[in-house]
Amino acid sequence: MTAATYNGSRTFSTSELPPVPPRPGEVQIAVSYTGLCGTDLHIFHGDMDSRVSMPAIIGHEMSGTIADLGDGVTGWSVGQPVTVMPTLSCGSCAACTRGHRNVCHKLDFIGIDSAGSMQNYWNVPAEVIVALPADLALDEAALIEPTAVAVHDVRRARLAEGEFVVVIGGGPVGQLIASVALQRGARVVLVELDPARRALAQESGIATVDPREQDLMDLVMRETSGAGADVAFEVSGAAAGVNSAVEVLTTRGRLVMVAIHPRPKEIDLHRFFWRELEMFGARLYQREDFEEAVRLVAAGSVPARRLISRVVALHDVEGGFQALESGDAMKVLVDCRATAEAAL
Amino acid sequence: MTAATYNGSRTFSTSELPPVPPRPGEVQIAVSYTGLCGTDLHIFHGDMDSRVSMPAIIGHEMSGTIADLGDGVTGWSVGQPVTVMPTLSCGSCAACTRGHRNVCHKLDFIGIDSAGSMQNYWNVPAEVIVALPADLALDEAALIEPTAVAVHDVRRARLAEGEFVVVIGGGPVGQLIASVALQRGARVVLVELDPARRALAQESGIATVDPREQDLMDLVMRETSGAGADVAFEVSGAAAGVNSAVEVLTTRGRLVMVAIHPRPKEIDLHRFFWRELEMFGARLYQREDFEEAVRLVAAGSVPARRLISRVVALHDVEGGFQALESGDAMKVLVDCRATAEAAL
Repeated sequence: MTAATYNGSRTFSTSELPPVPPRPGEVQIAVSYTGLCGTDLHIFHGDMDSRVSMPAIIGHEMSGTIADLGDGVTGWSVGQPVTVMPTLSCGSCAACTRGHRNVCHKLDFIGIDSAGSMQNYWNVPAEVIVALPADLALDEAALIEPTAVAVHDVRRARLAEGEFVVVIGGGPVGQLIASVALQRGARVVLVELDPARRALAQESGIATVDPREQDLMDLVMRETSGAGADVAFEVSGAAAGVNSAVEVLTTRGRLVMVAIHPRPKEIDLHRFFWRELEMFGARLYQREDFEEAVRLVAAGSVPARRLISRVVALHDVEGGFQALESGDAMKVLVDCRATAEAAL
Repeated sequence: MTAATYNGSRTFSTSELPPVPPRPGEVQIAVSYTGLCGTDLHIFHGDMDSRVSMPAIIGHEMSGTIADLGDGVTGWSVGQPVTVMPTLSCGSCAACTRGHRNVCHKLDFIGIDSAGSMQNYWNVPAEVIVALPADLALDEAALIEPTAVAVHDVRRARLAEGEFVVVIGGGPVGQLIASVALQRGARVVLVELDPARRALAQESGIATVDPREQDLMDLVMRETSGAGADVAFEVSGAAAGVNSAVEVLTTRGRLVMVAIHPRPKEIDLHRFFWRELEMFGARLYQREDFEEAVRLVAAGSVPARRLISRVVALHDVEGGFQALESGDAMKVLVDCRATAEAAL
């Protein structure tokens, strides 16, 4: 079988490896598609070389079908379509014992801390498997993981129907957050500089604003009768995004910090005091978020297919990352099917 | 009657003014004591000259007895001991209509935006009067307002019994927050550089730490079996205080931003993401906080008397502020009684 491996310095190569049978308690998945996400891009850039063990098989946004069951695995059958919730929590740390397994202090994030899905056949513990509806297209199903991120982010915001939401940053997660918020009955505006991303959002029924052409504060004040936004999602990772998110909020407004800000950023703490603003960090998802994401993608309630910009082969993972870097792709999938590779 | 007025440039003077009878709906209070707070100190320093109308009678932490009732005021009687919740909200803005009157967009903070209590006789709308128990000493009662701030801050933290709390900054509000948190059954450590402030806190049964002598993280990790603090109150106003507050928190830990940070400060947003931390701005108080503060001060549950460092006369307000500036005083009260002034 074929696997793509990250070898450091922006390079991926493919290796032919013998398939390994699943161990007891494991399920072997014939992988269909693996999506490339922002964290994968950080790995490609070498930012996480201290965390990944090279040569590394990465990838965690995926879909596939069960190929084999290890001893002791029950309740699953060969051929069944599945995805994976790629987190293994310890169950005993301070986070897990309080029910916050997504922020487990010893979290094994499958696809970063252990082998991921950029290979034809992938063995994972049965506990991380999530069943898919039989009629869900497997390319769309690769969008379930980022949708689960969006579901979790919206849950962290305690969003209520009719609230006004500003999403700052129109990458895949920003667009999915906007779609989930719309599903919840919120009024949403997505702030994005890139016209192609704005156009894509508009196709999904998401109102957008280019903050260079239209004053965001004016728009929010007009839409909220001068009150300000109830919720802001900071998904841009930019200092200006943080400032805008703080600025647009109404009294007791909630800011959900979705983007990864590797370095500390200045924030207007006086406004937090003055307006009693609230900020919530949000990371990954919990099981209920993942299951809700399956329902939303299966129901077509989020624009999974629309977000797929291109599909690359396992031997072209570098090309996939280059497309992401160039900014002209939203979601890039890697076709991990053994049959696809054999056909090339 | 005598009033102390702020005239700009760190100067106060006293004026002899004819007492003004209360207008309809107003209550005239014979003021007993007025406490000097951090905001008053900002006024003394000239930082708020654009907000106060000079010559300004300031002061809002107070106690007194009712001297006269304006037409139409019912339910109150002359001689009754009272304090004032010094906020007038509009009732119709986006904050008020959601029940957040403490962050009213048009808030009139009495003692800053309108005349305060540094005078023998003070007329206020009847709606801001709060009754005091007959047996509560009126000097201690002047601590009710800062106690209400602390009650509100603790309520914003959604503090639960048994949680571990770090209070950063041991001024009067920090010490009151620590005391209220102890009352709620929390375990508390107060971080403070000044040995006299630490000693005072210890007299109130509050555990303290000098972060230059003892590693705060080590202490918190030891006390929480490696989990981290559930809640941190940033009351120092210092950049180092913000950093410590973020650092000590456990997953989903709550940071309450109490201190005023006039300029934006750097904050570790990655840790907010990674640990799903939460931050809550907290400002002033609501009616229920104020009434709870009356109960706590009356019951001796917070160290009101212990926090009173000295009492100055109305003609010595400058001396009171200088004592605050020197750092050798916690709470300074101004004796506003007509009889006190007459005796000098």
